[in-house]
Amino acid sequence: MTQTQKIDLLIEARWIAPVDSDALLEHHAVAIDNGRILALLPSNQARRRFQPARQRILDKHLLIPGLVNTHTHAAMTLLRGIADDLPLMEWLQKHIWPAEAAHMSPQFVLDGTRLACVEMLRGGITCFNDMYFFPDASAQAASELGMRATIGITTLEFPTPYASDADDYLDKGLAVRERWLEHPLINFSLAPHAPYTVNDASFERIATLAGQLALPIHCHIHETQQEIVDSLKLHGKRPLARLHDLGLTGPGLIAVHAVHLDDGDIRLLAESGSHVAHCPTSNLKLASGIAPLKRLLDAGINIGLGTDGAASNNRLDLPGEMRLASLLAKGSTGDAAAVSARHALRMATLGGAQALGLATRIGSITPGKQADLCAIDLSSSDCRPCFDPVAHLVHVAGREAVSDVWVDGKCCIEAKTLLANSPNNLEAALTLWQNRLEVCR
Amino acid sequence: MTQTQKIDLLIEARWIAPVDSDALLEHHAVAIDNGRILALLPSNQARRRFQPARQRILDKHLLIPGLVNTHTHAAMTLLRGIADDLPLMEWLQKHIWPAEAAHMSPQFVLDGTRLACVEMLRGGITCFNDMYFFPDASAQAASELGMRATIGITTLEFPTPYASDADDYLDKGLAVRERWLEHPLINFSLAPHAPYTVNDASFERIATLAGQLALPIHCHIHETQQEIVDSLKLHGKRPLARLHDLGLTGPGLIAVHAVHLDDGDIRLLAESGSHVAHCPTSNLKLASGIAPLKRLLDAGINIGLGTDGAASNNRLDLPGEMRLASLLAKGSTGDAAAVSARHALRMATLGGAQALGLATRIGSITPGKQADLCAIDLSSSDCRPCFDPVAHLVHVAGREAVSDVWVDGKCCIEAKTLLANSPNNLEAALTLWQNRLEVCR
Repeated sequence: MTQTQKIDLLIEARWIAPVDSDALLEHHAVAIDNGRILALLPSNQARRRFQPARQRILDKHLLIPGLVNTHTHAAMTLLRGIADDLPLMEWLQKHIWPAEAAHMSPQFVLDGTRLACVEMLRGGITCFNDMYFFPDASAQAASELGMRATIGITTLEFPTPYASDADDYLDKGLAVRERWLEHPLINFSLAPHAPYTVNDASFERIATLAGQLALPIHCHIHETQQEIVDSLKLHGKRPLARLHDLGLTGPGLIAVHAVHLDDGDIRLLAESGSHVAHCPTSNLKLASGIAPLKRLLDAGINIGLGTDGAASNNRLDLPGEMRLASLLAKGSTGDAAAVSARHALRMATLGGAQALGLATRIGSITPGKQADLCAIDLSSSDCRPCFDPVAHLVHVAGREAVSDVWVDGKCCIEAKTLLANSPNNLEAALTLWQNRLEVCR
Repeated sequence: MTQTQKIDLLIEARWIAPVDSDALLEHHAVAIDNGRILALLPSNQARRRFQPARQRILDKHLLIPGLVNTHTHAAMTLLRGIADDLPLMEWLQKHIWPAEAAHMSPQFVLDGTRLACVEMLRGGITCFNDMYFFPDASAQAASELGMRATIGITTLEFPTPYASDADDYLDKGLAVRERWLEHPLINFSLAPHAPYTVNDASFERIATLAGQLALPIHCHIHETQQEIVDSLKLHGKRPLARLHDLGLTGPGLIAVHAVHLDDGDIRLLAESGSHVAHCPTSNLKLASGIAPLKRLLDAGINIGLGTDGAASNNRLDLPGEMRLASLLAKGSTGDAAAVSARHALRMATLGGAQALGLATRIGSITPGKQADLCAIDLSSSDCRPCFDPVAHLVHVAGREAVSDVWVDGKCCIEAKTLLANSPNNLEAALTLWQNRLEVCR
């Protein structure tokens, strides 16, 4: 007689999309112990083999890997909707920058990132790649909420309330990283803001640090046509070529936006093994354009999806980005088969994990990986009928259908009610921030 | 001493966007009696002036006119997700048409339209413009659910399970219209399917009928480039020019999709006073392209928003279409100020009402109009902070934030639970349809 094995958690689901293959498993279960995925097997076998301390039966649900938000500025939730429908420079110069200059502080970042984490967890995101200021506060918010995060060591040449020059940004960021080195959920990246805000010497220091510390590099690249024109004038080359010459391209680089790309740019990204964080909503809202997603995928470039910050989106909604990525690719190429639902799901999970250098630990429902999971309830009338659960996830179900979220096997569903019950009095903090920021509009 | 007036319903709201102007009213109330809006006034005055039988206080909500879905094929909810991510002709010929040929019936249309009405009401839509078969069943479903509808007298040259030729479609549709003439919520349009499926003689009969019966004309126009190429070959003119020569353009025409338009087409639409039903999600998903929304608005053409049917979207989600219309217009023109949230809200309400010829009765919160209303709860953490409620409606809040819906002053919020409690056993019918349709995939 076989003995049953004691485990922490068994999740049985009507459908499971593990993403490490295109398979769609039916009536399967995920066995979880000590935060990791122990096994993925038919539910009836799992019941015989395991003796779980806790059990969750998702009989009308699709279980997928937790979503990975490959680019955001989490704390900017506090600036959500502070100025919309404005030309880019007016938006930045008259609204966003003045508000940040007046209010940015560790407390701003802590409260804003808490709010972002609540929103992201409610919508199925279990990991985010952040670029903002006061990284210690971002890391604290993510760890409080039990969310996985790659915190950017943001670098700029010009001063902000956080730091004075590039070396100051880097030194402060590296010191914060030291403090969080042992935390299981918190990782770091080097995050030079953009080619037009960071000089060659700083990029060279960043390239060296990336190699020494094995950190990914998280950088806005080719978001607008103007930055390419300016770079050609100033440096005699396109921004991506400049980064390549400075040693920043490669499997460690996450090129954010990558909207304006010629064939040479795409070849350079592909041949270097660089990743792209595709942010379709933000690219439309700021009128940057439509990134050539299908061409990037056809070139074999790994893609993650990002929401960007809530000031330019204004939702941290990765299911929404999946849908828009698929729709835009079809509409802009004339090919209705471009970027299928399966492609979109892969980008939003494993693609993001690969970009962050975390694919051995997260991004798919694979035994040995951490149990970062998301369940989508497909039983509401808005989702009926349902013929293909993965297509429904992308084309039908919104983030409102997310029912359960686990990070490292720990249920984060309490995030759904977190705002009301916040031990940090986030509700009161949000009212305070709104009143303060109102005057910046 | 002023005497108070007895009324059916008083709705007090934190914010009201009446849409007949760009005003945003705070702490105002809508007084409703006998299904109509009696007054719109500050809440404290309303409490003194009226004695309502019922009262609703929306203290964290934005109240807007009920949303108008200017183009859909409601019953196609039953084909939601039956085939996604496929090239257009494979999708139509191998999946949609065979499924319709095998299953379309009055019961199919009744059940499918019921499901569509539930979804639309849950998402704030109070009126829809439908084009499908068995119009008696569509009208029955809408009236059962208390929803306003303009039912298309669909016309094609080729036979379907519903009718044999254009005259048969028209005669059957006109007979159905006779039966519903007195119903307060049900209106009709003439709905020639498209220039490439209807011949000149039928269009001429339709133009005559439109004039005699004062009915709008609801027609797919310039959805794809191919139909323009074909029309030039067959008729020696573009489809829109042909319709114009046949007398169909004018304030009665709702041109659906209108994706591929040259300057002459836009001038023709503008000068004739024709309306456009803009369906951005469907246009992307079927790879038709991106309609030139900003150019249409700049030309002074009235625009309504449509979801299209659930086989090509796959959500009947007008808040989603508002957001996408605004985003796409920005991203495709390079102008971040293009199609503001206020523009989008206007298209989704008053623009749609004008297109349907119903603007004297619905489309704005104006005394004298019917009380078709929608409330959006902006208090969830995903909507915090909130600086501009109308911008938040479009760029932040999804349809999941819709809390209350009224048609003719009657609360339809029970639609939220309608599926479970359906007196028509819709739940069982949906399971049946899913099983039947599964074999068509």
